[in-house]
Amino acid sequence: MIPTVVWEDGVVVMIDQRRLPNEEIFVRCRDHHEVAAAITDMVIRGAPAIGVAAAFGLALGVRNSTSEGGALREQWDDVCAVLAGTRPTAVNLFWAIERMRRRFDTLAGEGGDALRRALLDEALAIQTEDVESCQRMGDLGAALLPDRARVLTHCNAGALATAGYGTALGVVRSAARMGKLDHVLADETRPFLQGARLTAWELQRDGIPVTVITDSMAGHLMARGEVNAVVVGSDRIVANGDVANKIGTYTVAVLAKEHGLPFYVAAPVSTFDLVTKTGDEIPIEERSAEEVTHVAGHQVTPDGVPVRHPAFDVTPHRLVTAIVCERGIARPPYTESLRDLAGRAR
Amino acid sequence: MIPTVVWEDGVVVMIDQRRLPNEEIFVRCRDHHEVAAAITDMVIRGAPAIGVAAAFGLALGVRNSTSEGGALREQWDDVCAVLAGTRPTAVNLFWAIERMRRRFDTLAGEGGDALRRALLDEALAIQTEDVESCQRMGDLGAALLPDRARVLTHCNAGALATAGYGTALGVVRSAARMGKLDHVLADETRPFLQGARLTAWELQRDGIPVTVITDSMAGHLMARGEVNAVVVGSDRIVANGDVANKIGTYTVAVLAKEHGLPFYVAAPVSTFDLVTKTGDEIPIEERSAEEVTHVAGHQVTPDGVPVRHPAFDVTPHRLVTAIVCERGIARPPYTESLRDLAGRAR
Repeated sequence: MIPTVVWEDGVVVMIDQRRLPNEEIFVRCRDHHEVAAAITDMVIRGAPAIGVAAAFGLALGVRNSTSEGGALREQWDDVCAVLAGTRPTAVNLFWAIERMRRRFDTLAGEGGDALRRALLDEALAIQTEDVESCQRMGDLGAALLPDRARVLTHCNAGALATAGYGTALGVVRSAARMGKLDHVLADETRPFLQGARLTAWELQRDGIPVTVITDSMAGHLMARGEVNAVVVGSDRIVANGDVANKIGTYTVAVLAKEHGLPFYVAAPVSTFDLVTKTGDEIPIEERSAEEVTHVAGHQVTPDGVPVRHPAFDVTPHRLVTAIVCERGIARPPYTESLRDLAGRAR
Repeated sequence: MIPTVVWEDGVVVMIDQRRLPNEEIFVRCRDHHEVAAAITDMVIRGAPAIGVAAAFGLALGVRNSTSEGGALREQWDDVCAVLAGTRPTAVNLFWAIERMRRRFDTLAGEGGDALRRALLDEALAIQTEDVESCQRMGDLGAALLPDRARVLTHCNAGALATAGYGTALGVVRSAARMGKLDHVLADETRPFLQGARLTAWELQRDGIPVTVITDSMAGHLMARGEVNAVVVGSDRIVANGDVANKIGTYTVAVLAKEHGLPFYVAAPVSTFDLVTKTGDEIPIEERSAEEVTHVAGHQVTPDGVPVRHPAFDVTPHRLVTAIVCERGIARPPYTESLRDLAGRAR
């Protein structure tokens, strides 16, 4: 298993995704501020993984205090606010905080120790369920792929973006296990290079054939018939089926439509935000200019030239062939199919 | 003027485009082998600039010999072969060699010194005409742009890609002079980063507002209404109007179509290859893996993971709104309009 995020006796341990693939270094977070910083700074990234890390951060945030009653609730609210302030787009973060909050509220009448233990158990359950969800959606999604699948993916929606197995790369892993996978083309995914660094690293580790391309090559290779399906993850899926994901996903979806290729999104139900009606209302995080102007510390643009850095984009539902989650497959019209899956028991 | 390529008393001097924008260093080529290496290694790049550099390389190749007659012709053929072997896609290279060859053939009966002088004059004429062509196509292209033009461009089709002024950036420069230009969005253009490094550098130098984006952001910004025209250069335009240009151009053209934006190609007649019927027949150069796996010497992919590196792609004519050259504007059907422009006197 890839140690994306692990609870280790009161410490949240994460592999530092900024340093991969060149170095395998672990960051040890001893309080919720350190977990929040790890999320903000992208030590850990990927919507489901951010949710799991936040849950551990919440458990950690009240673990070392001796407060009880009203003081404990006040402290809890602070901890929730710190973690909620880390990144705006991935809704799994807010989903995990909300789920932990409900657990807190249910048990607030009991003693502090029982509450603290219950919060840790809830975070561990979120982690376990995330892996199981990925495995289920992986199998469901793989069934959709053509034989000898030549899958193009964008960013990293893999084990490193989840508690394990991955969403889009879960589909890829299941397809490989079923003998259906020919090859993965991984967009390098500028500016942060999650594809070149993380998708390549984890698929190579698992012996799954992967080739890295620059984002600009996807259209050319589709035109040459080298892709027969696109599978990506998501940071937020809203009521009408619009999908927020890493910047560049929308371009891939437009290219898939132009070439008549299926465009699949794989994401757990925790990525659904059915309160938000359309993609226009999704907050798009703007990250630092430096992630665009510099690559590995080396400046690639002239001093003083401005850059843009929207970290996500929205793919409208009309470009999405199907959305795969752990409970089944949503097809258009998404307003109905997503609501149906969200309401279904696990 | 930006010193893309200059003849300086028997030496061909080029600004080293691999080092921009961080360093302004000049490479001095003293024989045709050094010019050929400069083209192959991308000290100089951009289809028209490659043509000019090759012409100077040819003049240089026979300048320092004292051969005459058959021996001189043999040497000349060798020099032509060395320069023709540098890069396969940009047809301006072969156009320049062919034009110089005709000059050689016409004057082969005269003495070696007159021939050598005539070859240098021809190379200097190619250089001068390239600047004039860019200025003319710049003005013609700028007239096509909407007021308050927000132009997206890919790669560098600027002064650095020509003898001066630029093709796509010639259109931008003319639009700026006419007061029609709002802003340029420059795709960074992985893997070689011609947009981030070169387009940004030369537009900043000229005081033209430019913002660099990653290639993956173009679709998102078009969807948000931040672009109202696309202008790119070309390495080869064939009889049916299919356009070879830097890898990623095809993706931009698909995005332009999806958003109802005009997609303009600016290139001199020396970029026309009307002997070749369709884009399928254009040789696409595959460059080194290292240009993809490394950025500024820093490795971004894991050891042992393969990458692809087609350096160009082909945009089918159905996605091209118009082709602007120094003699006028070609519109569909291109089979007729390009032939008409090619046959017209300068």
